[in-house]
Amino acid sequence: MQTAIFPVETLQRFAADVFCSFGVPDADAERAAEILVLADLRGIDSHGIARLSAYVEMLRAGRINPRPNVAIVRETPSTATVDGDNGLGMVVAPRAMRIAMDKADDAGTGWVAVRGSNHYGIAGYYVLEALKRDQIGWAMTNTTRMVAPLWGAERMLGTNPIAIAFPGLEEPPVVIDMATTAAAFGKVEMAIRKGAEIPPGWAIGRDGLPTTDPTAMADGGALLPLGSERERGGHKGYCLAAMVDLLSGPLAGANWGRFTPPFTLKYDEQTREVGKGLGHFFGAMQIAAFADVAEFKRQVDDWIRTLRSCRPAPGTAGPLIPGDPEREAEARHRRDGIPLIESVTDELREISRLTGVAFESY
Amino acid sequence: MQTAIFPVETLQRFAADVFCSFGVPDADAERAAEILVLADLRGIDSHGIARLSAYVEMLRAGRINPRPNVAIVRETPSTATVDGDNGLGMVVAPRAMRIAMDKADDAGTGWVAVRGSNHYGIAGYYVLEALKRDQIGWAMTNTTRMVAPLWGAERMLGTNPIAIAFPGLEEPPVVIDMATTAAAFGKVEMAIRKGAEIPPGWAIGRDGLPTTDPTAMADGGALLPLGSERERGGHKGYCLAAMVDLLSGPLAGANWGRFTPPFTLKYDEQTREVGKGLGHFFGAMQIAAFADVAEFKRQVDDWIRTLRSCRPAPGTAGPLIPGDPEREAEARHRRDGIPLIESVTDELREISRLTGVAFESY
Repeated sequence: MQTAIFPVETLQRFAADVFCSFGVPDADAERAAEILVLADLRGIDSHGIARLSAYVEMLRAGRINPRPNVAIVRETPSTATVDGDNGLGMVVAPRAMRIAMDKADDAGTGWVAVRGSNHYGIAGYYVLEALKRDQIGWAMTNTTRMVAPLWGAERMLGTNPIAIAFPGLEEPPVVIDMATTAAAFGKVEMAIRKGAEIPPGWAIGRDGLPTTDPTAMADGGALLPLGSERERGGHKGYCLAAMVDLLSGPLAGANWGRFTPPFTLKYDEQTREVGKGLGHFFGAMQIAAFADVAEFKRQVDDWIRTLRSCRPAPGTAGPLIPGDPEREAEARHRRDGIPLIESVTDELREISRLTGVAFESY
Repeated sequence: MQTAIFPVETLQRFAADVFCSFGVPDADAERAAEILVLADLRGIDSHGIARLSAYVEMLRAGRINPRPNVAIVRETPSTATVDGDNGLGMVVAPRAMRIAMDKADDAGTGWVAVRGSNHYGIAGYYVLEALKRDQIGWAMTNTTRMVAPLWGAERMLGTNPIAIAFPGLEEPPVVIDMATTAAAFGKVEMAIRKGAEIPPGWAIGRDGLPTTDPTAMADGGALLPLGSERERGGHKGYCLAAMVDLLSGPLAGANWGRFTPPFTLKYDEQTREVGKGLGHFFGAMQIAAFADVAEFKRQVDDWIRTLRSCRPAPGTAGPLIPGDPEREAEARHRRDGIPLIESVTDELREISRLTGVAFESY
């Protein structure tokens, strides 16, 4: 596939101006663009600028509120429930995460359930914010249904990611950011484009049977939870997706499971409303609430070095530390720019035409 | 294999008296026995009375303190770090969970990291306790090393379980209690006893290569994390085990990873001390801190019924709800008694001989 390389700043500027053109306030638009492009930087392309067209569609159709009144509707010293007023997830979620971090500063930890939101970009962004305050950040969100529970034949849950990060002292942080499925939907889409098969364990077709045909998954089939089959612990991946859904949906007063709203106009609208918008669940834990901060970070360094010294499995270079691939991608992309495939560049030009925001194409 | 059936009360009485015979105070011994036998009740035999001999060995060798001074060493309104003074995990952990629940009553949530503890039985016990207070409970623990990280060829992590539970109104609660491996070590042991192979994806041998030979795993090999291989998300299971280890080890000041202490004298002592004993991490969240309790429970009921109405995959009866199998096992065993295989009964007789506590054998 043909790709063109763009400087980070170009993509971020463009996305921010596009959000502004729909009435998103400047500071919100800047941050939303930063979160969006951080996905490209960290190599999670499916959640980056390639998704801008989906957000634009939703904003144009009036399905997302560009100037939400994000409000706390219930709180205790260590918790809050936040209503995002149907704003962009990348506008609502940073404010909610900030509430969690502020509460952690005061009460040791802060936990915020969010309703009335939309897709919030990469979960990793929020937990990286917590590191800046010497806090351990947690981020979860439910997402458009895409995943069958073990022994189910239809989509009942989202890819429901979990993120958490731990700071090192001299070592870079351990950053976990993972969907609770065997594989990301982006990888299935990639296989369709290439005309390739997908490995066993990723998906079922419309008939509920395992498939290696990516179009069978995309056309009314479903992704499988982490673990894939019963024998390999597929019920555990389903448990994790359920956990994220129950914390982000029922606890927050958001939609859940099969009733989560679609994130693009391509998908059908939900059949029933069981809450408001999409839901998230954030946590922030002050490290100093549990341990001496420097001593904790030294222990994390030791943990990282111990794992790195593990005898490698044959044919591998040994275990990675969670966050290694994303950090390396970010360093490379900040230096060399972000490669976009032609179909994405075409979409950005179309957005430019629709919004009147200039897109610098080289 | 030959089995004999025992009433719950008989096993619980015996275990409590055995703990008492080592100087464990009555109330602690009663509760430890209750937690131990709850594992048998819920069908998690590997963590039940079959493990009593391992605890007895450790108590006899003076490796576990029967009368620990369990103390808070650091705290904030929503957190505590607890030192278990090398007590039985089933003595230390219930006290720590109680601190978490008390803090949740006051501050909305409570989070407790524990060091200087030992194996605590089934994680499910602690989250079921939180349900009694209309709280969402979390329980994690690191455990004796048994698991290779993805692309590693040796044991660096434990099976590090995660548990969390959500109450329904008319429906029974959703109870998640899962190791972060593809399969439990108990299943590998069972395959050895039967002379059977284990499925691909469960384990590697001493050489770091995948194996279906259970003895190759047991003899210096390792279990694989949930997801098994890179292609199926084995890095995600590794991430989950890492998360549990970092919360239970470095944050608590306990040992972690490859340095976690063995839970039986059969395994080598750890090569290096990086903290105190084994570590746990508990959480408790007041439901009322986030939502109206009755409304939340109604939503959970709706969630459960929606999942139950999912179209079944061919050849299955459709998805279960997390906690279904354990609840059904508990109802059956409370009614009919607990079946124990002969080797376990023999061990109990041997414990009876060593301690002088009468074991009623039928």
